[in-house]
Amino acid sequence: MAEEEVATQGAGASLEQIARTAGVGSATVRRHFPTRRALLEAVSRKQIEALAARAHALTGEQDSRKALLDWLTDVVAYCVTARGLAVALAYDSTESVYENSCSATLEEAGEPLLNRAARDGAVAGDVTVADLITLAVGVVLATEHHADPAARADRLFRLAVAGLSPS
Amino acid sequence: MAEEEVATQGAGASLEQIARTAGVGSATVRRHFPTRRALLEAVSRKQIEALAARAHALTGEQDSRKALLDWLTDVVAYCVTARGLAVALAYDSTESVYENSCSATLEEAGEPLLNRAARDGAVAGDVTVADLITLAVGVVLATEHHADPAARADRLFRLAVAGLSPS
Repeated sequence: MAEEEVATQGAGASLEQIARTAGVGSATVRRHFPTRRALLEAVSRKQIEALAARAHALTGEQDSRKALLDWLTDVVAYCVTARGLAVALAYDSTESVYENSCSATLEEAGEPLLNRAARDGAVAGDVTVADLITLAVGVVLATEHHADPAARADRLFRLAVAGLSPS
Repeated sequence: MAEEEVATQGAGASLEQIARTAGVGSATVRRHFPTRRALLEAVSRKQIEALAARAHALTGEQDSRKALLDWLTDVVAYCVTARGLAVALAYDSTESVYENSCSATLEEAGEPLLNRAARDGAVAGDVTVADLITLAVGVVLATEHHADPAARADRLFRLAVAGLSPS
């Protein structure tokens, strides 16, 4: 499965490796996924949908600050276990080629959580969901080679948002 | 030059591309740089030394908070223009294989800046130079594909440190 290969190999998975694991020719992979990004978008779709569902579920939480941070903590955790997801999310949602890109889907899902938190004064008004997701992706990509990536990414993300949303 | 190739291609530069650009066989490149990290360490050396020198120069500044943030802003800016540097710095300095790794050299150079800022109460006591550099590297890696990576990385880094060092 291309999905597993990307999860294991992270950003470094080549189309050739993915093709080999999937038992198909690399020409086949290239035909379906003309760019690396197209491939990452496809293999990350399921996780994106799960994270979007999680955002919807958390919108009902009473503590809007906690709901937003809980969701972002999940985004970090998901990206640590599936690094292809982090790489897919590193692409700007405003690029017009991919209409329902992973970034765009996730930003839309997080919007209500951010709006509630901002209305309650828990987040500065000029911070966007895209900012927060990019910070989450950044701590994951930067800790990929560390001894305990999950713990390290979580710690750094908490440091990074400490100023955005003082408790 | 391997250095230019890595700067242009970023994390995606393959040993083969670098060898082609340098006009040597990929076996030669592999002999000198048995791992991707060894190559990145080598091509980033000059920039690391420039950033270390900048840290020493800034230690004389009166405003310790500003000195630290100015230096980190430089780290972000350098990494945006030379992405191989960001990738090299994403490796944990505590791994023992590389004694004078880029990460270790930069952390040592930033230590006096952080200590001064912490003594002046400008940074929380449990924040390390490694934390700050990893955050800097993270915003660079996560904005690589954005429309204006330099501006985007700078904005996100300012957001990320807002809580660590409230002005």
